[in-house]
Amino acid sequence: MRNAKTLEYGFSNEEFEIRVERAQELLYENKLDALLTTIPANLRYFAGIDTHFWESPTRPWFLVIPLSSDPIAVIPEIGEKLFRKTFIKDIYTWPSPNLKGDDVTPLKSILETLPNRFGSIGAELGKEMSIRMPALDFGLLQDNFNFDIVDGSPLIWALRTVKSFNEIKKIEKVAQIVSEVFAQLPTVISTDDSERDVANIVKIEILKRGADNVPYLPVVSGVGGVSQIIGNPTNKLISTGDFLFIDTGATFDGYFCDFDRNFIVGTAPDELKRANEILWHATEEGIKNLVPGAKTKDIWKKINKKIEDFGFMIQGDGRYGHGVGLQLTEPPSISSFDNTIIQENMVLTIEPSLEYKPGKLIVHEENIFVSKDGPVLLTKRAPKELPSIS
Amino acid sequence: MRNAKTLEYGFSNEEFEIRVERAQELLYENKLDALLTTIPANLRYFAGIDTHFWESPTRPWFLVIPLSSDPIAVIPEIGEKLFRKTFIKDIYTWPSPNLKGDDVTPLKSILETLPNRFGSIGAELGKEMSIRMPALDFGLLQDNFNFDIVDGSPLIWALRTVKSFNEIKKIEKVAQIVSEVFAQLPTVISTDDSERDVANIVKIEILKRGADNVPYLPVVSGVGGVSQIIGNPTNKLISTGDFLFIDTGATFDGYFCDFDRNFIVGTAPDELKRANEILWHATEEGIKNLVPGAKTKDIWKKINKKIEDFGFMIQGDGRYGHGVGLQLTEPPSISSFDNTIIQENMVLTIEPSLEYKPGKLIVHEENIFVSKDGPVLLTKRAPKELPSIS
Repeated sequence: MRNAKTLEYGFSNEEFEIRVERAQELLYENKLDALLTTIPANLRYFAGIDTHFWESPTRPWFLVIPLSSDPIAVIPEIGEKLFRKTFIKDIYTWPSPNLKGDDVTPLKSILETLPNRFGSIGAELGKEMSIRMPALDFGLLQDNFNFDIVDGSPLIWALRTVKSFNEIKKIEKVAQIVSEVFAQLPTVISTDDSERDVANIVKIEILKRGADNVPYLPVVSGVGGVSQIIGNPTNKLISTGDFLFIDTGATFDGYFCDFDRNFIVGTAPDELKRANEILWHATEEGIKNLVPGAKTKDIWKKINKKIEDFGFMIQGDGRYGHGVGLQLTEPPSISSFDNTIIQENMVLTIEPSLEYKPGKLIVHEENIFVSKDGPVLLTKRAPKELPSIS
Repeated sequence: MRNAKTLEYGFSNEEFEIRVERAQELLYENKLDALLTTIPANLRYFAGIDTHFWESPTRPWFLVIPLSSDPIAVIPEIGEKLFRKTFIKDIYTWPSPNLKGDDVTPLKSILETLPNRFGSIGAELGKEMSIRMPALDFGLLQDNFNFDIVDGSPLIWALRTVKSFNEIKKIEKVAQIVSEVFAQLPTVISTDDSERDVANIVKIEILKRGADNVPYLPVVSGVGGVSQIIGNPTNKLISTGDFLFIDTGATFDGYFCDFDRNFIVGTAPDELKRANEILWHATEEGIKNLVPGAKTKDIWKKINKKIEDFGFMIQGDGRYGHGVGLQLTEPPSISSFDNTIIQENMVLTIEPSLEYKPGKLIVHEENIFVSKDGPVLLTKRAPKELPSIS
């Protein structure tokens, strides 16, 4: 990003100002008087708010970016000191929770003081977002309101899907940490461990290397493959013959990596080896095609063709990757129905999957930054052959 | 809970059936034809879904509890195998994300087949909840719909605020794990550590002892007190004279503990010692009064009076505790404006705070289970005097 300083933690005020300025350009293009944001990732993106207080759903937090004035934070008193540390200067607070139990009147009053040029405010109404406040309060905001509230999510995604140098560095850092842990995994786990033990070990190893959190870590094992890839680990012991799948969403300074690795306990049967090899090549095909100007749906087709070249017919149109950043998954989707044009500085996963026989699923995944010269791996590439655990 | 088996992980199908049965009793009382749930804590509570896939906002998940038939899961295909492991038998799936980009039509069709006796469906519209789906999709659901969607959150909170024996055991387990870590903290951290280092050490120690996750861990330090209590740790070094505040929301099998501990690096000045002692007694007062039949607002008053007895005048009406369970914070609030009657088997925090001089804040917090015979500490009680770190 132009002019912005590189910091290991946080971002310069300048970088936030650039984000706001670009949001305001898009507000003007979209004929919106302001952007209203409520979700953690957006408050972090536009204001640099670094907290996990979101785990408490008691209070809403609001950040307003007006068309042509400075951003305004409308937040519960408990958040004031935290906001005072950011570049945001206009901060309004109210006591929350409070007697009236109404957390939206302060916001409404402030929004109604904004210049009304277009009659519309954009909010997080669309894909991959939701409004973080009680729906009753959101109704109250819209009731007899000077502005229509319309979908501002495309605007937000237009900004957030294209990363700055600093954002890419943070994703790379956590992707490298997790890659190291995966590379060493066969030496630290064994058939004495349950899925839960494995998850626990992996989390500790990731934290030891300096990541901040490991919010997502499915560990799934089963003979010949797994039937699902999103469940939390169970007490099932890792046994000889098991295929072991570990997916990871770990964060550094708010930014996620999202990739998986597969292992075999003992020796893999030939058909599993084959499925794994096919997916490795399918992933390679996806990575190779992540270049500025490519269309997501074409990348999906090429990955699919690669798998079909190996003699597998794909059913359905499951996606083969997605954006990653302040959320574990972000637009665009590498899918048959997504028309996004890949841009320089997007960060995406390539994530092809194969149900090579009924109930036996394998998924590969890597994280890639799209440079102007083509794809740059942020993860250490998975080995071509399934690593073995003894 | 009557008839339900004790399991360290998960719950018996019987316990889920009891939860659903009680929900249906409340649906009838509230003249609702069904309850629609979308958020992680509710899908875990009613169906036992154990995943952190929620980190991906790409797809909505729906669980419907009809007034007089079995619960119905309406979920993206990717979740089917996970739901098949639960006691839920009626499972409808659709491919998501998909070409049309519409994730609500399958749900709408299924809801419209339900018997329409009262014309209303309850959903997560109220306090401490929000709808986990794009607002545009929620609008689409309500558009030309056979049912009014009304607030079902009081019904959900009536169930979730009163815990089963198994739920209490899980909160106790994680509260005990974190208590142990806090007790040993002065021996594992030192003035060479930054706030981030301390957070990292605490997380690893908590995981080592068998907790699953540490989603919430503010670490804040400052001479004589802290000005805020919710921000993530920074690179600031812990220095002699610092007051150190650590709050913790760690989970075991989905259930949170939520309590803090305070430390002093070196020797505390007298006024800080005094403030700490006052809060210790205020906490004691809160715990003592957590008995079945007590009113939350009266407990708030008693805590406040205790602080004022020591000569401090309280400004404002900040809350002094809250429910805890599948969420870090849940109703009720121990506050001046909350009229909840404390019931047997509620689990709450007592959390008084004191700004003993401007910008110098101290907070104490414990987790308590309300037995029929009175309060039972789930945490190991904080020492009366601030533990010292050297």
